[in-house]
Amino acid sequence: MEDNTTSRPLILVTNDDGIFAKGIKELVKAIHPFGEVVVVAPDKPQSGKSHAVTLDAPLWYMVSKFDDADRAYKCTGTPSDCIKIALYRIMDRKPDLIISGINHGSNSSVNILYSGTMGAAMEGAIHGIPSIGFSLLSFNSDADFAAAAHFAAIITEKTISRLGSLPFVCLNVNIPCLPIDEIKGIKVVRQSKGEWIEDFVRNYHPSNKRPYYWLTGEYHDLEPDSHDTDTWHLDNGYIAIQPVTVDCTDYKALDAMNGEGWF
Amino acid sequence: MEDNTTSRPLILVTNDDGIFAKGIKELVKAIHPFGEVVVVAPDKPQSGKSHAVTLDAPLWYMVSKFDDADRAYKCTGTPSDCIKIALYRIMDRKPDLIISGINHGSNSSVNILYSGTMGAAMEGAIHGIPSIGFSLLSFNSDADFAAAAHFAAIITEKTISRLGSLPFVCLNVNIPCLPIDEIKGIKVVRQSKGEWIEDFVRNYHPSNKRPYYWLTGEYHDLEPDSHDTDTWHLDNGYIAIQPVTVDCTDYKALDAMNGEGWF
Repeated sequence: MEDNTTSRPLILVTNDDGIFAKGIKELVKAIHPFGEVVVVAPDKPQSGKSHAVTLDAPLWYMVSKFDDADRAYKCTGTPSDCIKIALYRIMDRKPDLIISGINHGSNSSVNILYSGTMGAAMEGAIHGIPSIGFSLLSFNSDADFAAAAHFAAIITEKTISRLGSLPFVCLNVNIPCLPIDEIKGIKVVRQSKGEWIEDFVRNYHPSNKRPYYWLTGEYHDLEPDSHDTDTWHLDNGYIAIQPVTVDCTDYKALDAMNGEGWF
Repeated sequence: MEDNTTSRPLILVTNDDGIFAKGIKELVKAIHPFGEVVVVAPDKPQSGKSHAVTLDAPLWYMVSKFDDADRAYKCTGTPSDCIKIALYRIMDRKPDLIISGINHGSNSSVNILYSGTMGAAMEGAIHGIPSIGFSLLSFNSDADFAAAAHFAAIITEKTISRLGSLPFVCLNVNIPCLPIDEIKGIKVVRQSKGEWIEDFVRNYHPSNKRPYYWLTGEYHDLEPDSHDTDTWHLDNGYIAIQPVTVDCTDYKALDAMNGEGWF
């Protein structure tokens, strides 16, 4: 780990569990040797907020204390809001790298679509800024981040060494909740097909007796026999890195529809 | 337009402008001849909510009156919540088709990522249900939906005629705000590269004088010279249909990273 004081890259950090979560503290502690770190993170948990932006309320932000960060701000908005307000109001130059996380919980497979952590990273990618989202496969608020922080530092350092000639603009990195020496390796893989089978738990309001429903569910891997996916690698002790695009076009379907002359 | 009472497809309808918006009323009026229509839509505007799901509060839903729908429910959640609760609590069988919209405002280019309308359609696609999001290029709450409704009916009827052998699972359909006879055609195209350059407008709280910020911005097309994009076609009077995937993997980057032996 070198402290490149001559040309320290500017790193913008956010998350979706909120600025007081353990994951973002462990992340900043792990990566601050590699650059100037500015934290702009939600002032409260924003899990499941996807790429949402706040259109119907103003945003507030204020300076926050944060160990190991050069500067830190907490913001009332979503993770994507944090990136936008950081880029256009808070920072005086474009960051060289955006890092989001370390999320408490998996963002592999379709979870990327619901994830505020990855919403923030993808917001960076829209603006052409290399962005990485890190997630640990544990929802425990006091989870052991030793391995996640260790490998986040390795992946961050490697990325910084190639800034300007990266083959990707956004990475979704998921890390098994295992001791460092039980992690089998790091693999660059594709997103697996999966879905949540939901079980809305019903309860009743104590006064008016109206039913309400809590969203709960269970993740189902739709291709358990494929060995080239994020899900398979995570299940087998590997760190899974998914390069991410913000182009949602299904090119096979595009060609098929035009081939069939739909319109 | 035939009323196929022998095998009427079950169509689930939602939106992100809320169940009382003009766009969803015009949509249901246009498509109800093609099937049994069940509306499950947010009870209030949910624009910009992307694929967000509600994890920190329970959901409520109740029956709502809705002209031309077979059944309708308003729900306290996001558009994605509406799809989930419809599939797992409200409907007694899986819908044959999910339609979201008609959105007040464009969901072309990167706007698909912020869009609650498209978040709902993509939620349907995750579950393997053919899904279409329709958007009109006008944010006016009383916009003229004549052309949008006309073409939504055509695209819906065509999709229903091929249920079971569709070349796509999700479509993002954007429609210029023009009279029907000024629409030049319907094109199946890719998502253009673009970004919002944000301008956070600052104001001050009347009592404590703290500054707050409203997210506003201007869309910038990053490839105005490409003539195969949604943006170009919309600017030139065409309806743009983008087939959408829920696989966010950047396969070019994946191959490049593995080719370079990153890990």
